Amino acid sequence: MARHDRPEGAALAALPVAVDAMGGDRAPGEIVGGARRARDERGIDVVLVGRPGDMGDTGGLPEIHAGEVIGMDDDPAQGVRRKKDSSLVRAAEAVRDGRALAMVSAGNTGAAMASALLRMGRLPGVIRPAIATPIPNPGGDRPPTVLLDSGANAECTPQMLVQFARMGAVFARCRYGTARPHVALLSIGEEKSKGTPLVKEAHAMLASGAGGPGLEFTGNVEGRDFFHGVVDVVVTDGFTGNVALKTMEGSMGFLVAALGAVLARDDVREAAEKILPHLLPLAGALDPEGTGGAMLLGVDGVCVISHGSSSATAVVNAITVAHDLAVSGLVRDVAAAVTADPTPA
Amino acid sequence: MARHDRPEGAALAALPVAVDAMGGDRAPGEIVGGARRARDERGIDVVLVGRPGDMGDTGGLPEIHAGEVIGMDDDPAQGVRRKKDSSLVRAAEAVRDGRALAMVSAGNTGAAMASALLRMGRLPGVIRPAIATPIPNPGGDRPPTVLLDSGANAECTPQMLVQFARMGAVFARCRYGTARPHVALLSIGEEKSKGTPLVKEAHAMLASGAGGPGLEFTGNVEGRDFFHGVVDVVVTDGFTGNVALKTMEGSMGFLVAALGAVLARDDVREAAEKILPHLLPLAGALDPEGTGGAMLLGVDGVCVISHGSSSATAVVNAITVAHDLAVSGLVRDVAAAVTADPTPA
Repeated sequence: MARHDRPEGAALAALPVAVDAMGGDRAPGEIVGGARRARDERGIDVVLVGRPGDMGDTGGLPEIHAGEVIGMDDDPAQGVRRKKDSSLVRAAEAVRDGRALAMVSAGNTGAAMASALLRMGRLPGVIRPAIATPIPNPGGDRPPTVLLDSGANAECTPQMLVQFARMGAVFARCRYGTARPHVALLSIGEEKSKGTPLVKEAHAMLASGAGGPGLEFTGNVEGRDFFHGVVDVVVTDGFTGNVALKTMEGSMGFLVAALGAVLARDDVREAAEKILPHLLPLAGALDPEGTGGAMLLGVDGVCVISHGSSSATAVVNAITVAHDLAVSGLVRDVAAAVTADPTPA
Repeated sequence: MARHDRPEGAALAALPVAVDAMGGDRAPGEIVGGARRARDERGIDVVLVGRPGDMGDTGGLPEIHAGEVIGMDDDPAQGVRRKKDSSLVRAAEAVRDGRALAMVSAGNTGAAMASALLRMGRLPGVIRPAIATPIPNPGGDRPPTVLLDSGANAECTPQMLVQFARMGAVFARCRYGTARPHVALLSIGEEKSKGTPLVKEAHAMLASGAGGPGLEFTGNVEGRDFFHGVVDVVVTDGFTGNVALKTMEGSMGFLVAALGAVLARDDVREAAEKILPHLLPLAGALDPEGTGGAMLLGVDGVCVISHGSSSATAVVNAITVAHDLAVSGLVRDVAAAVTADPTPA
């Protein structure tokens, strides 16, 4: 499915990952720092995309110049349309033109998505690309659960949810090595009669094998099933997915902050010092910095979108994920999964 | 708006709260225990509804007999249709017939809702009743945030969301004394352009004063705004609301369990004993046992639905809330709010 003029195989793997040096709350410092570390510590080739002279100490990394920046609060569609020389648009063009292996940005999520969609284009057969976000499953043996769509499409059709199931299963396989991912729909009850007409129709289609041969459809899960590794992929529309994701972040963030306030009390300092080391593995497992960011599935190229607050460490992880997924042939596999025949029920 | 044959004023306040003795994971023991405590500790009159002889030690509480029980896993609509002599249906009939002030159940939520709807009936002008659930705001000065609809209606129209806003504002006022509740829509961005067509249309209507005179519409909030007391009432469709509520429960529950496992380690026992007392206020504030349960708004009577796992303490709180809201005239105020004229924008 790759365009003719794009490198493949070894030539593809030799390309650098294009990093949007200007995107993110802590850009360019942490972003460029992460890019340098990805090269130095992981041996991954990186090209920085940004305003010449505005990227700080690039450590000699190659650069693609872009004169504009789409801000975190800019309207995504307008930003991409008006700022054709922005770092996001240039990064997406580098992938399209075969000058970069993949793109990574911690900037405006909507604009990153729009840049990738408009410049790389949709894969054949894809109705709408979706954002896949890994939700950690701390404490268990299971890799993160992939939630999609976590915000690209507020409105969805059952056919789109079926494609999300197919694309999410490929992502779980390429990213976590799950041979035959268990895929579920997010609903408000486990019974197939529960939920909106959208969910019920998607349920009927997936139960009839519309998900294709690469996945195991297991029915509905509920909001309380996150963090328990019940399934490998949770499929929902981008409105519900975004609400669920932000509700998780908010709930966890609130509780972590409240716990932190208790542990910071002067009168429990010694006790806190004993407890903290045991909490660190959990904190590490839950930290979005470690998951490598979300990914736009369904476009003709790899686009990893990191959290806006990304540190250098988060950027290193995002670059590594982008590199590995691009080399693993994720885009080719997504293209194949989307157009594969359904399996008989 | 009350039916003619129902008591009002002092005669109303003298009626007992009908408690479904058979509903809930820990029924009848904890339910009946809670009913007894509500009478003994709070001086609230209670009537138990259930199978004679199957309610355990009733402590001499009056009883309304019901020969059937709708199980936690029974289909709600079928259960109510087929089990006309069930404790849930009989409890709702007691309210309808002026023999009880309000009903409380920790049983099958859908069946409690269906019983109340079918036996008490909708208030004039109400399109569809909605479930209002209080979300605690620990640490701040604000009372819980009211989330509705948290599960009654998977599909909603903008007109329904506007009514939910009106009903939720009355609930916040009656339950927490908030004079002019701040009401927001749950969406995936604060801008009015964000969200589904449903949310955008409801936003336009509420911004034009469709919520009526009793509330302040403040726009959109996101999933991460729960637990921070940003607004008094959050309005959404029952699918999104239920996903958000269960995602909160799941996230919090996961983190609390993980923290509990750390604090239970033998090698940190002394430290844990120092820390735990400081965590208890937070745990107490977050405990759904303390909030008194969810409430079905829009029916012609007070129906409080407690968590399925309710203990006697949760039942005491639910009975108290049901009693206080019924006496405060909540139903009358909801009826008035639903039919009030819009305010000019």
